[in-house]
Amino acid sequence: MPSNDVASQKWKVALVGSGNWGSAIARLVGKNIKERSDQFDPEVKMWCYEEDFEGRKLTEVINEKHENVKYLPGVDLGDNVVAEPDLAKAIEGANALIFVIPHQFIAKTCEQLEGKIPKGTHGISLIKGVDVKNGEIHIFSEVISEKLNIECAALSGANIANEVAQDSFSETTIGCRDIDVAKKWKALFETEKFRVAVSEDVVGVSLGGALKNVVAVAAGLIDGMQWGNNAKAAIMRIGLLEMKRFALEFFPGTQPDTFVQESAGIADLITSCLGGRNHKVAAAFVTKGKSFEDLEEEMLNGQKLQGVQTAKELYQFLKNRGREEAYPLFTFVYRVAYEGVKPDTITAHI
Amino acid sequence: MPSNDVASQKWKVALVGSGNWGSAIARLVGKNIKERSDQFDPEVKMWCYEEDFEGRKLTEVINEKHENVKYLPGVDLGDNVVAEPDLAKAIEGANALIFVIPHQFIAKTCEQLEGKIPKGTHGISLIKGVDVKNGEIHIFSEVISEKLNIECAALSGANIANEVAQDSFSETTIGCRDIDVAKKWKALFETEKFRVAVSEDVVGVSLGGALKNVVAVAAGLIDGMQWGNNAKAAIMRIGLLEMKRFALEFFPGTQPDTFVQESAGIADLITSCLGGRNHKVAAAFVTKGKSFEDLEEEMLNGQKLQGVQTAKELYQFLKNRGREEAYPLFTFVYRVAYEGVKPDTITAHI
Repeated sequence: MPSNDVASQKWKVALVGSGNWGSAIARLVGKNIKERSDQFDPEVKMWCYEEDFEGRKLTEVINEKHENVKYLPGVDLGDNVVAEPDLAKAIEGANALIFVIPHQFIAKTCEQLEGKIPKGTHGISLIKGVDVKNGEIHIFSEVISEKLNIECAALSGANIANEVAQDSFSETTIGCRDIDVAKKWKALFETEKFRVAVSEDVVGVSLGGALKNVVAVAAGLIDGMQWGNNAKAAIMRIGLLEMKRFALEFFPGTQPDTFVQESAGIADLITSCLGGRNHKVAAAFVTKGKSFEDLEEEMLNGQKLQGVQTAKELYQFLKNRGREEAYPLFTFVYRVAYEGVKPDTITAHI
Repeated sequence: MPSNDVASQKWKVALVGSGNWGSAIARLVGKNIKERSDQFDPEVKMWCYEEDFEGRKLTEVINEKHENVKYLPGVDLGDNVVAEPDLAKAIEGANALIFVIPHQFIAKTCEQLEGKIPKGTHGISLIKGVDVKNGEIHIFSEVISEKLNIECAALSGANIANEVAQDSFSETTIGCRDIDVAKKWKALFETEKFRVAVSEDVVGVSLGGALKNVVAVAAGLIDGMQWGNNAKAAIMRIGLLEMKRFALEFFPGTQPDTFVQESAGIADLITSCLGGRNHKVAAAFVTKGKSFEDLEEEMLNGQKLQGVQTAKELYQFLKNRGREEAYPLFTFVYRVAYEGVKPDTITAHI
């Protein structure tokens, strides 16, 4: 379907994913498609990996209470958000798919979807992080796009899920190469309190959400050492510029403004350095003197800390190209986490 | 003296000012001129408006204890920083002047200096804020430059004085049109923990330090309302772009990068929105429901709150040009402070 028909095309939307962020987004989308039923089918299916919740099936509880009692408790999702445990059924008839699953499930989920997605289906990735394989870095919208043979946009920004779910003021950025499709995505997500900017820079938007976690670790180290706000601001500034340089060097065509002007760049970085798990665990790394591994177990229920993980992947990527010295902050975070370099030596490294 | 001789010229430095920031800078300068005595005379005079301190003259106490007991207590300034109550004596023989006085004293101080400054003397302004007169906005380095007929650079950045005085890691930006002079200023100020970047954009460097206070007020309102970190990051992003747009519209030749890349732009904004008096008083405006006037009296010892003051000046400047709607965040801060607009209506205004 040519893109100039997109404006008049009615979209039937499905969510692939139903965690904390997925549920917050499902609620926004549910509200909007009700009010904009000329543009969207007024019901949204939300694929939900079935699990047990207090002896019942989670999807059943969600659909009875209109609340994701496990991942977004206390928030009314609306009665047109329908949890569906069967992936094929969840996406049946949909021509617009929102991908919002943890990145470790992407490969398997795409496998299950292969051949089931009609041509011309629109995709958007809300997945944070990057895919690193065979020494190459790929953004997840590309991964999805290639596996499912569809166009895939990206949405990222200063978007702590619980705040978005409570209608606190937030902004986000949609990266989408086709401006008409971008407008449709904007109409789907935007509310008075959730502002959407659009950009053609899919890669920049996606990279921002991954790279900022490394900088948030560095900012957490600074806070753990109690070096004050001058130092924290300096690290955030240096980190933002390193993010931008990295994108421009290795992903030609990326727009510098995505980093220094958009919510997916500077604002997401700020939010992550003010709070967020990467920042918090890194501060504890200094104050408690335990390894990141132990802290992950203690503080994150065994989940991996994204910033430290990404720092490792970046380091290997850069090392392969002999470029690790050109990104001293990224490299420093890696060395602190994996090589025992002391956080208080940071100014000698960056 | 042609600028290519600057590198070999020996500078005798004097400070015009000795408050909290002035004293912190005097300490850095004192350290550096001792170590770099090939480039600088190893003593620095610091003009100090004479006042009483516990029954003695403040300058006497400073020179005896090598400590500004009133404005930077607990910090050793070094024995080559000499407080001098007589302005003419303080600058005698100096060919490099650092201006670091409260802006309300600039006019009078410059008057006293007129005709006493030899041609070729180098000046640098560390004064925050802008001069608004007859509906025009001038940066203080220009004001000094015109009144004293000398070149005047500017230094600004994420520089909370007490943190700099404790050798916590900080960055700053020097705006100076002559690259050789800029290098000399850098040599004078830079230490391992106080990093100096140079830029030709004197105006951008100066404007950053004034405009960020308005954004810090807005960020304080957000924190007072407890709207969360997404909202705070959004306001900071929007504010930074408004700062940049304002500079580009009204000060042609300003560099956009000064705002989005330099310490004098983004980093100073971050520091000011994380803490600082503008942020703190604005948060109290929401939580205590008192006027800014009352809060100034309660919290600032009767001093004026710079962000609110600057918002008023900007508003009048913009209004005269019919441009107030093009800067909705600046205008909103003005309206909250002076026209009773409610902080929680912010998203309807910006």
